[in-house]
Amino acid sequence: MSTMKDIANLAGVSVATVSYVLNGTKKVSPEVEERVLKIVQKTHYQPNTIAKSLRMQRTQVIGVLVEDIRGMPVPEIVDGINEHLEQGPYQVLLMNLRLLDKLYNRYDQLAQYIDPINQAIILMENARVDGIIYVAMHDRHIKGVRRPVHIPMVYAYATTDEAETPSVTYENERSAYEITMRLIREKHVRIALVAGHSASTDAKLRLDGFMAAMHDAGLDIPGEYIRWGNWEYQSGREQCDRLLQMSVRPTAIFAMNDVMATGCYRSIKDHGLTIPTDISVVGFDNREFAQFINPPLTTVELPNRDIGMHAAELLIGRIEKESVEEQALVLPCRIIERESVRGI
Amino acid sequence: MSTMKDIANLAGVSVATVSYVLNGTKKVSPEVEERVLKIVQKTHYQPNTIAKSLRMQRTQVIGVLVEDIRGMPVPEIVDGINEHLEQGPYQVLLMNLRLLDKLYNRYDQLAQYIDPINQAIILMENARVDGIIYVAMHDRHIKGVRRPVHIPMVYAYATTDEAETPSVTYENERSAYEITMRLIREKHVRIALVAGHSASTDAKLRLDGFMAAMHDAGLDIPGEYIRWGNWEYQSGREQCDRLLQMSVRPTAIFAMNDVMATGCYRSIKDHGLTIPTDISVVGFDNREFAQFINPPLTTVELPNRDIGMHAAELLIGRIEKESVEEQALVLPCRIIERESVRGI
Repeated sequence: MSTMKDIANLAGVSVATVSYVLNGTKKVSPEVEERVLKIVQKTHYQPNTIAKSLRMQRTQVIGVLVEDIRGMPVPEIVDGINEHLEQGPYQVLLMNLRLLDKLYNRYDQLAQYIDPINQAIILMENARVDGIIYVAMHDRHIKGVRRPVHIPMVYAYATTDEAETPSVTYENERSAYEITMRLIREKHVRIALVAGHSASTDAKLRLDGFMAAMHDAGLDIPGEYIRWGNWEYQSGREQCDRLLQMSVRPTAIFAMNDVMATGCYRSIKDHGLTIPTDISVVGFDNREFAQFINPPLTTVELPNRDIGMHAAELLIGRIEKESVEEQALVLPCRIIERESVRGI
Repeated sequence: MSTMKDIANLAGVSVATVSYVLNGTKKVSPEVEERVLKIVQKTHYQPNTIAKSLRMQRTQVIGVLVEDIRGMPVPEIVDGINEHLEQGPYQVLLMNLRLLDKLYNRYDQLAQYIDPINQAIILMENARVDGIIYVAMHDRHIKGVRRPVHIPMVYAYATTDEAETPSVTYENERSAYEITMRLIREKHVRIALVAGHSASTDAKLRLDGFMAAMHDAGLDIPGEYIRWGNWEYQSGREQCDRLLQMSVRPTAIFAMNDVMATGCYRSIKDHGLTIPTDISVVGFDNREFAQFINPPLTTVELPNRDIGMHAAELLIGRIEKESVEEQALVLPCRIIERESVRGI
C-alpha cells in the first residue's frame, strides 16, 4: 500500500504538500494539485489506518500557556490560535501564568519564574495535551524553559535558541526603522526618541531600528534626544516635558509605545503646542485607543492575530507530523497612517 | 463518627464555616475558629474518607466558557477567576466562543448561537470538568442555554432566571443613576445622553438609571437630548455633533461608554469648545485609555476582577457542596473622578 511519502516522491513534492491537497488545509497551485491527485488515483492511496487509529489516542487538546491574559498582545494572539483551530477537531486548554504584575518592568527576571512555568508545562503534559503554545506578553528571548517530553511546543511573541522549538514573532527592529524613516521622509531632522524600559528586549530592538534609520539618513542624534521612559503614560509625559524645555526642541517624537505617546500628547498640550502643526508624534502597538485620541495617532500595528494563527499552524503541523515548516517565523508589521504627522 | 454537619450543629455555625476553618480557605473570626477547633478535638472528627475519595475522582478542572476573549470585560474577569483558583488545586480549561464579530450590535440574537454554546458545554462535560463558568461579554439575561448534567454552572457578567444557576453581575442601572447625579450635584440642568445601541441590555439599564436620576432631581429631559448611538467612536462623534448644533446646547453629556465619550471629545474639539470649561463629559467602563485622553475622563469603573473571583467562589462552593452561597450577586461599581467635569 502506498504511503503519503510514496505519493510525495512520485509527484516530486513534499509530504506537506500532499497533505495540503488531501486535507484541503492550504492552497497549492492547480498544477501541483492535479499532479498529486492523479498519483493518488493511480496508486489507490488510502490514508494509513494505523496512523489514523494512533491519532485517535490523542486527546485533541492543545495547551496554550499565556504569561498573562491581560498582557497587551495576548487576547488577539489567543483569538488567532482559536481561529486557526476552529476548523476542528482541537480544543484549547488555556492556562494563565499571571506574570503581568510579577514581571512588571523586570523584563530580565523571567528566569525567576521558570519554576512555575515548568510546573504549568508538566501539568499540561499530565493533562495529555497534544502540544503546547507558549504565549509571551513581551517580545523576549526565552531560555531554560522545560521542553515537554514527546509533544511539540511553539513559542508565540518570543524567540528561542532551542533546536526544534519553533517560534513566531514580529519585525520589531525593522518596524522601528520604518516608522523613523516615515518621519525622515517628511523632512524631519530633529527627531527625538521616548524609549521604553531599558531592560526590555522591545526597547533594545526599537532603539536599534531608530538608530539605524537615523544613521542611514545621515542625521545627528543629540544624546539628550534619547529619553528613557518605562513604557508608562507618566514617563512619556515627563520625558516629553524634558524635550520641550530644551533650547533646541525636536520637531518630531517617536514614542516606543502608544501609551507613552499619549503622555507626550499631554505634555505637548501643557506646553501650549499643537500636534502635528508644531510637533509630530508617532507611536508603536496600534492600541485600540490610538484611533480615539486627538489627533488620531500614526503608529505601528502588530500582527498579533497572525502570530497566533501561525503558531497554531506550526504546532498542528508538528503534531500531525505531516509538515515541518520553518523554525522561526518573523512576521511584518504595518504602519497605520493617521493625523499626528506633518511634513516640515 | 462525627460529620462536618455535626461539628457545625454543635458549634452553632454553618457547614461552610467549618470547612473554612478546617481548610483555611477563608478567614473567620478568632472566636468562631476557636469554637470550631475545640469541638473538632472533642468529637475526634476525621474528614470523611469516602467523600475524599469521591473527590479524587474529580478532574479538578474548571471549564471557563467565554463569549469572546477580546470582549471588553473578559480578560479581567478570567484573571479574577484565576486569582481565586490560584490557591489550588483547580486548573482552568478555557474555551473561546468567538462571538464578538458574530454578535456585533445584534445583542438580541444570542439565541442564534445557542447551538454552538451548547456544543461547547457538552464538550466540557465530556472533558469531565468539575464545573463551568460562563463569561458573557455584554451584560445580558441568558435563557435557553444547556444546564450541564451533574455539574454546576455559574454565569459571570450576566443574569439568568434558571433556578440553581447562580450569576454574578454589576449594578448597571444604579451606576448610571450615580454618575448622572454626579453631574446634577455640580448644578448641571441641561444634561444630554449619548446612548449605546438600543437593542442592548446595557443601554436599556443605563437609560433607566439616567431617567431616574433626572426625574428624582425634577429636571426636564428634552427628547432631542437623548441621542442613540451604537457604542462606537463614530456614533459618539456624530451624536455629539447633533447636540452641539442645537440652539440650546447641553452643558453636560453622559456617554454610555468611554469609547463614545472619546467621540464626543473629538466633536467638542471640532466645535472649538473645551472640556470641562465649556462642557462636561462623563463615560462608563473605565477603559485603560480613560486616564490617557485629554482631559482624563470621569467615568464608572466596572468590578470585572471581582465578578470573576466571586463566580469562581460560587462555583467551587457548589462543587465541594460545602457552601451554598447567594444565588445572584450584583456587585457595586465605583465612580472614578478625573478632569472632565466642572460645576456650573
